[in-house]
This record gives sequence, C-alpha cells and structure tokens, in this order.
Amino acid sequence: MRPHHDGSALYVSSQSPALGETVSVFVRVPAGTRASRIHLRWIIDGEPVFTSAVVDRTDLDGDVWWRADIPVRNPVTPYRFLIRTTAGVRWLTGLGLTHYDVPDATDFRLVAHPAPPAWARDAVVYQIFPDRFARSAAANDRDTPAWATRAGWDTPVVSGPGATEVLYGGDLDGITRRLDHVAALGADTLYLTPFFPAGSNHRYDAAGFDRVDPLLGGDAALSRLSAAVHARGWRLLGDLTTNHTGTGHPWFADRPDYYYFGPGGSYESWLGLAGLPKLNWGSAGLRDRFHQLTQHWLSRPYGLDGWRIDVANMTGRRGADDWTHEVAALLRRAVADARADGLLIAEHGHDATGDLDRDGWHGTMNYAGFTRPVWSWLRADDLPFDDFLGVPGEVPRRDARSTVATMSAFAAQMSWRSWTTSWQILGSHDTARIRTVVGGAARQEVAAGLLLTLPGTPMIFAGDEIGLTGADNEEARQPMPWDRPAAWDTATFDRYRTLVRLRRSSDALRRGGLRWVHADGDSLVFLRETAGETVLVLCRRAAGEPLALTGLPGATRFENLYGGAKPLYTEPDGATAIDGYGPAVQVWAVHN
Amino acid sequence: MRPHHDGSALYVSSQSPALGETVSVFVRVPAGTRASRIHLRWIIDGEPVFTSAVVDRTDLDGDVWWRADIPVRNPVTPYRFLIRTTAGVRWLTGLGLTHYDVPDATDFRLVAHPAPPAWARDAVVYQIFPDRFARSAAANDRDTPAWATRAGWDTPVVSGPGATEVLYGGDLDGITRRLDHVAALGADTLYLTPFFPAGSNHRYDAAGFDRVDPLLGGDAALSRLSAAVHARGWRLLGDLTTNHTGTGHPWFADRPDYYYFGPGGSYESWLGLAGLPKLNWGSAGLRDRFHQLTQHWLSRPYGLDGWRIDVANMTGRRGADDWTHEVAALLRRAVADARADGLLIAEHGHDATGDLDRDGWHGTMNYAGFTRPVWSWLRADDLPFDDFLGVPGEVPRRDARSTVATMSAFAAQMSWRSWTTSWQILGSHDTARIRTVVGGAARQEVAAGLLLTLPGTPMIFAGDEIGLTGADNEEARQPMPWDRPAAWDTATFDRYRTLVRLRRSSDALRRGGLRWVHADGDSLVFLRETAGETVLVLCRRAAGEPLALTGLPGATRFENLYGGAKPLYTEPDGATAIDGYGPAVQVWAVHN
Repeated sequence: MRPHHDGSALYVSSQSPALGETVSVFVRVPAGTRASRIHLRWIIDGEPVFTSAVVDRTDLDGDVWWRADIPVRNPVTPYRFLIRTTAGVRWLTGLGLTHYDVPDATDFRLVAHPAPPAWARDAVVYQIFPDRFARSAAANDRDTPAWATRAGWDTPVVSGPGATEVLYGGDLDGITRRLDHVAALGADTLYLTPFFPAGSNHRYDAAGFDRVDPLLGGDAALSRLSAAVHARGWRLLGDLTTNHTGTGHPWFADRPDYYYFGPGGSYESWLGLAGLPKLNWGSAGLRDRFHQLTQHWLSRPYGLDGWRIDVANMTGRRGADDWTHEVAALLRRAVADARADGLLIAEHGHDATGDLDRDGWHGTMNYAGFTRPVWSWLRADDLPFDDFLGVPGEVPRRDARSTVATMSAFAAQMSWRSWTTSWQILGSHDTARIRTVVGGAARQEVAAGLLLTLPGTPMIFAGDEIGLTGADNEEARQPMPWDRPAAWDTATFDRYRTLVRLRRSSDALRRGGLRWVHADGDSLVFLRETAGETVLVLCRRAAGEPLALTGLPGATRFENLYGGAKPLYTEPDGATAIDGYGPAVQVWAVHN
Repeated sequence: MRPHHDGSALYVSSQSPALGETVSVFVRVPAGTRASRIHLRWIIDGEPVFTSAVVDRTDLDGDVWWRADIPVRNPVTPYRFLIRTTAGVRWLTGLGLTHYDVPDATDFRLVAHPAPPAWARDAVVYQIFPDRFARSAAANDRDTPAWATRAGWDTPVVSGPGATEVLYGGDLDGITRRLDHVAALGADTLYLTPFFPAGSNHRYDAAGFDRVDPLLGGDAALSRLSAAVHARGWRLLGDLTTNHTGTGHPWFADRPDYYYFGPGGSYESWLGLAGLPKLNWGSAGLRDRFHQLTQHWLSRPYGLDGWRIDVANMTGRRGADDWTHEVAALLRRAVADARADGLLIAEHGHDATGDLDRDGWHGTMNYAGFTRPVWSWLRADDLPFDDFLGVPGEVPRRDARSTVATMSAFAAQMSWRSWTTSWQILGSHDTARIRTVVGGAARQEVAAGLLLTLPGTPMIFAGDEIGLTGADNEEARQPMPWDRPAAWDTATFDRYRTLVRLRRSSDALRRGGLRWVHADGDSLVFLRETAGETVLVLCRRAAGEPLALTGLPGATRFENLYGGAKPLYTEPDGATAIDGYGPAVQVWAVHN
C-alpha cells in the first residue's frame, strides 16, 4: 500500500464545502512507509500555496494520518500533496504518486458549487426504454402512427434500416405494472429514455416537449407512473434531447432562430442526419423555452427528480460557438429552482472531464472511465460484433492493469463527487449487451461485481439482470420477455439482486474511499473504506494461480459478504492468500 | 524509435490553420514497427470522429508515413491516433503511446485562433532588469527618489528586508549603449522588466502606466532604445503588471472600482502585500484603460513588439471571479489591433496549460515544463539555497527520465505552437542563477545546450551568459560587471554565443519536431527534425559509460556542429556509439 488520498469522507471533512469554509484533508501513510514531511499545495486565485500538513493520528493498523486545512476561496480548489519519504520527493495527485512534476489537471478538487443531491450518490439506477419494457392493456388498442410498423412483443428485433420504425408498443402504464420486478432487483431510481412524441421508437427525434407521447399513455400515464414510483420512495428521471429535435417539432417550422439554417433552407443536423436538426443555443428564446420545460416536468403531477441530457457533449457546440457550459449551468439552475434535490446527468461518450465541476452537469454517463475499461478487461474471446463503443475495431484485449489505469486516468480529472455521481454503465440502449460482450454468465457476474462495488452510481439497463443478449444497440432493445420464463437467467438475476442489496447495505460500497490493492492480467483487488467499515473486493476474470496479498488493513478477520469460495485469513507473515478460482467476485468485510 | 507525431511542420501541413481549412496530419512509423492500420480521431463540435489514415510514403530510412486529413471546424480541434501493431492497439497522443484509454487533455491540437507572430518562434530573448543592466552618463545625475537608497554599481546585492529599495541606477540609455553585447551573444529580442514609475527597483508596483520612469530616462529614452533595437532588426518587449498596481498609482486613490475594496477601507492585494492592491477586472473602465495603454506603447515612437504579462495566472481571478480568459483575449485583441505581429507572453509559475490555446496568451514562461525539470536534472550536489521555484524544500534530484516525463507532461497539454512560442528559461530575475543551481560552468553548458536545442523560445536572463551567480532572486540581480573583466566567464560566453548562433542557423533547432531517443540517469538524447534537416543532440550531466544507440534515422554520416569530442559513426550492426565524456553537450547534423 502507498500513501493515499481521495475525495471520500475518510479523507475530506466536507463533501459539499461552501465558499469561506475551511476543509480538512488527510493523507494516509501506510505503516512501513516513513514520511518525513508532507506539504499540501492548493491553488488560490490561480496561484499555488503550500502548507505543512501535521500528523493527526496513527490508526490501529499503524497507518499515519496527516492533516492539512484548506480555506475554500474559489468555486473549484485544486489541491495535491508533496510527500517526502526515504524514497525521495513525490507528488500525490488523483493519478497517485509521481516522482516528477505533473500539470494541475489531475489535482484533487474541492468544489464549492451547489452539490449533487445526496440521494443520487446512493442510488441504483434502472434504465428503461419505454417501447420495449412492458405494455399495459391499453397499449394494444392504440392506433399505429404513420411512421411505425407494429411488431409482436416477442418478435426478435432486427438491426439495420428501418429498425427505429418498428413499434413494440411498450407504454408507461406497462412500466407502472412491472415495478415489482424493479423492487425485486433492488434498484430505486428509474431512468426513462425519452417519452415525448417523436417519429421513431427511440424518440430522440422529439416532435415536441410539451406533452407525453399518447402512444405511451400521455401525461396521465406519466402522472400515474410518477405516483407509483414515489410511493415506493424511489426516484424518476427523464431524458431530454438538448442538442437537436426531430424535423416534426413545431419549432422547426416556426422558430428558425432556434436552429442553424444556412443558404437555401439547408440546416445543421446531428452527425449529418437530416431528420435531427441541431439547436442553436445562441438563441435567447430557445434558452427560455428549455428553462421553462425543464421545470415543467419536474413539477407536480409529473414530479420528475431530474434529467439525463442526451448528447450533452455536443449540445451548444458548433463551429466557433461553444455554449455548452452556459447550457449546463442554465439547466442546472432551472432544475434547482424547480426542486432543490434535482439531478442532472450528461451523456458523454468519450471524455466528459472538461465539462464537469462547472456548476452544470452533476455527473456523466461514464462510458469512458468505466464501460470501456470493463469491456476490454472482461471481453469474450470471440465477439459477434466489431465496435468498441464508437472506436473503430474490435474491443481491445486489455489486462487489469490497463483497466485500473483507464479508470484512474478519467477519475483523476474530475472531482470525487462528480465521479461518484456519474453513472457506471455496463451497457445501455446505445450499446451491445454486457452479456454478449463478456460471453457468458460467469464473466457477467464479474462485471456486475465491479458495477456494484466501485465508486459511482450503478446504472442497469433493463434486461441485463436477466442475462439478455444483443450484439448491437438494436438487438439490445429486445423487449423484456415477461411471458417467456426460459429466456430468464434467474441465476444472474439472483447475483444482481444480491449485489444490489449488498451495495445498499454498505456505506463503504456506496460512499467509501477507493484503494487499489492489486492488478495483474486476470485479477483486480481493491478496498472500499469508510471510518466504520472496510470492504475488500476480489475480482478474477479467469481461474489462475492463488495470490498472496500483503499489507491489507486490519486483516485479522474477514467476513464473507459475497462469493467467497473458502475462508480468507491472514497468515502470521502478513500475507493473505486468495484462491485461484475464477471467473469470480468475492466481497469481504475486513474487521480489526 | 516508436510511432511519432508532433505539431511541427514535418507532421502537420499548416502551422496556422483557419476555420474551413483542411489540414493533413502525419504519423511516422519507424522501420521495424509494422502498423496494420491507423485511425485518426478528432473532435468535432464535441464529438469524436474517426478517419482511416493512409500510407503516404516510405522514406529513405524505411519509416512509413501515414496521412489523414482534418477539416478544421472548431477554433481548437483535439486529435489523436489509434495505431494497430502486432503489439496491440495503442493510442498516440501528446503523451506518446498508451495501451489504455486516456482523457482528451493530452490530445494533439490544431488551433485556428490567430497564430502567434512567426518571428517570436525564431527569437532568442534577452531579459534585462533595467536597474541592473547598464547606466548611461545621465544616470549619475538623477535625483534619488524618496523610497530609494543608492548603491554603487559594483556593490554586492544584499538579499533581505529593504533589498527592493536599493537603486543601482541602470537606465534605458544604458541599455542602448550596450546593445553590441547583445549582438555579440546573438539574441534578437529584448525583454525589459517594467519601465513604468514605481516605488521599488523592480517596478512591479506601478505608480502609473502612462509614462516611462524618469529614473530610466523617460519616454524619450524608450524611444531611443526602440529605435536602436529596431535599427538592428530586433524586437523589443515590455512588461505589464495586470494583476495589481502599487498604492502609488493614481487609480488607487481615484478609481476604487478598479480594485477590490472591502469594509473599512480594506482591500485585496497580491499575496496579502498591502503595497500591491489587486485590480478588479470586472470593471469595464479598467478594461478600457488597459486596452488603451496596451496599444499606446506598441505605437510609435515606442513601438514595442509585445508584452510579457506579469502574474498572468492570477490576473482576473479572485474568489468566485474568474475573468482571466477574458482578460487574455482582450489584451490579445488590443495587441493585434495595434500591430498584427505583436506578442503576448504570460507569466505563469506552475501550470499555464489551462490558460493557453484560448485566443489569449500566445505562450507562457515555461518554468513548469522546462526550468524545473532542467534544474532537478542538473542541480549541484550542494546548493546554497533551499527552494524549488516556490515549491518548499530543496531542488529535487531527478534523473533524465523524470526530466523527459515532466517536459512531456506539460507540453502534451498545450498546442505545439503554444509550446514553441513559450519561453524556455534557465533562470530569471525571479530565481536563483542557473550557474549557482548547477554548480559550475560544465553543467551550465549542458543547461544552455538544452535551452538552445529544445523546442520553445530561449530566454536568457542578462548575465547568465557570462556566468553570474546568485542564490536567490535578489542576488541574481547583481548589476552587469562591465568594468570588472575578472567577473566574466568568457568561456561560458563563447559557449552561449556558439549555441545561439547554431540555433539561429538551424531550422531544425528552431522549428523542427522533437523525438526523444534515450533518457537514463545521466544521459538525454533527442532529435530535432525538419524535412530537410536532422539534428541529434546528446547531453550528459556527468561522465559515464558509453552508450550504444540503435535506430537513429539516416545514420550514415554525422557532422559535428557543437561539442563532439570524437567522430560519431554507426557500426555495421546499426548501433551508434556515444562516448562517455561528460558533463557535455554534443550537437550533430545527421546526413543520409
């Protein structure tokens, strides 16, 4: 173990510091490492300032905790530590220890902007694509719109041209009817992809934002769903398309100033798709409309608890225009004005770090810092597809060291709270199914183990928990096979349910700090820790040689919480032997 | 050698792309590495886009050059490469090759904002602290101001309280009189620390910006200096304090809205120094004043060629205020309006990368990415001071690998043009003297070798070139010993002069790409390359074992340009043997 700091409550005295507050930050120097001096460096008005840290205490493991205080003066305060040990002088930043100077980009950060809602960091999110989750009785009676072709609920989805026009007819009352399934899984936050009228089954081509698609049951069905969700003490999130609309949106005909029109009626559109004209956030009128509609759906009787923002990475960006941070701030304030505990999550497929911690998005969909590293560590030997979430070529084969390197690289460039409020995702309506990526139930358990034990808010795409497959985003949208029990992998469901319950019962898994303990080709070991709880997580993607880990904290007694094949104990020489069984996830409580 | 790209003309078809232009970018895959496919990824309106690169040519060394085209749509276009080799899939970013995903922060960048002036990248800057460079005959007749104590020109400078009030009486006509010395060195750009009236010898406590300090000879002396400098075809830069003024500035009494006044007449000041009240860039009036005065001094008869901006890192930042990028853009436009080829360089002591490439500062004073890594590689065993440019504790002892890691880490987070327009600095009026840091002439030669052969604009603090010493910034300001020949290290002067001349004669050294060839504890080897010229630079901080380098390009004939102890040639087995002599700098032209 090496000297450590992260943004969790174990190391930072306030998770939502205010300007003017003084925050204490701690460095833990493990027993066996002697630090002669530690300085805190923080940035104040653009200038680095150094303070000597002082020894605060020595804990039962012999780890020495150093403390320094930061008076919070700027909305974002980058900080790092300078540590002198017998090995030399090292910087400690979000990237860990470095023996050379590194730029501020990976500094830890105190953020004094209004904090994300506390509930969001504890949430387990369940993503529903309304056309494919469940139908109510009324769903069968609705007229088929002109753009659509009807499909029977259990008809296999076919990718390719026309796929977005196939209507399976799921609706909001269907979701309401199936909430017990979500309850059985243990999720507590529903995230619905768009429910506004549109010209496709995915509805990202909005034909309006002022009513719920009648095909989904209309406004009244949303009210009923919201009431049912909130009656269970859960949360409900919508999906707002801020980058573009469909051409069927009345604005497209009536408000050319909301779009980018060029000569001869040409217009800018999303990735050149003519059906998705791009919105111009330079328009004050557009800003007013979004401010109003953002709030409308957060108010009763709909009472959404927040929004996932579609294509947030492109929203407001076009040529020399870059309104993105202004849009994020506008929407964040609109949400906050409607409800103090509202949430705003940004879709971002490659690197959101430059857009976070700016009083806008509370978090991102962490494809870059979670999905890709998990996929590339756990991928099946053979894959029936050839795309790495938009990166050309097959999913690369990477070892656990690369997984840690990528996760750390992205986490290091955002605040702890932005990371932990971001959604960790194994797959979504936009990707292949995790089951297909990893090639079977055994490695899916490892993936789910990472999802539910690492920092960040787990998001489960409906169907993952019963082992649905799909080699692309269309196949992944196969309707839930409510009436085909043979299509359910109940063992996988039990694993998800157990892991979700475990997370919900453990402060350390939800809010604890993270220390990487070990990573090699096939194994990944880490600790999640709060002041009162230490949890050890062991993941293997394949069977292999046993591991001998040294230096685990308080390793006098291990209590198995999940998946332990045989008892775990620490030998007199200080080494903890981990069996070679795999693929496997083991979760252990560590007691002093 | 590994696959390589950088922002130089060898790899990028335009150094000043415009919006709408298509720019070709190249990857060089060295002979012996087989790339099966290369993709370019660039970011367009916030979204990554991939294009297949194509093989453009194979050069005489067997290196394969791949090409891809980027249509420039945004003011800043981040890009990187995805390279498939037999070793696996790698990203190529400004950090080099990585086997895992990394955030965009180290992507290469095309910048379509107006480019820095071309002359600046070819310049060799000579920094003059006016009170200490040279006196004209008239200097002796001037009255001593109330704040000052006079010192004889050759009186040793004493650090500590009162040091800033000791006036040695250098003036602008003194500089004009000594331009032949600068010419002998070969520098072509003078940078003067402030020449405005003030209450100290450093003049960073401006008492006005509307006239040249009469102690320096007043406006007329600046006109004379400017005329003399420009008559030689050189450039002249001023120093503008934008973060604060002195309390003697008329604004401080007359324009409270330009400052941060609090209750009871209290006010914000630089690092808490009451004599340096901080300017409030929220004031439109202040912005107008700076716009005007920035231009005034760029106009005839003064005709400055640009400004170095003091404390640029803090300018405009205070608590929740962050106007820094607006200030930089305002000053950049003001300069450009006055003269199209004006330069704007930002002082920044720790990490300027977040403030560059934003249509503001053209470059920075690269203490972070140059001075610190050079100091920590070349430092003397014993140092008479205990400060690492503001970082507590002594200058760390680091090897050449750390030097490369730090230089690369900072360079990777700015565009090539921001890097090459930034000032590389061995020391300044704010630091100890490089001669004292490295402990003698032998290692100073190595430092000067790095300064004059690496990318970036060399800045030489007057006196370094004759081996002046000083353990802190005050001692470093010892007046130039014009009348004490024994104080001149003429051998060091000859080395500087030769290296300056070498740089000025070599396109590769001024504008070439950079490939690191080798770094270990004591040795650092790199190539500077243009289409027509390849230069190999070998630096050793100490004598050691000979090195055998393999894979050097076109290594059929080496022509010594500087410091070669004995002939260099490549053995039939492809290895080039480098002798173990050191400390040493060798510069070789490599011919095919």
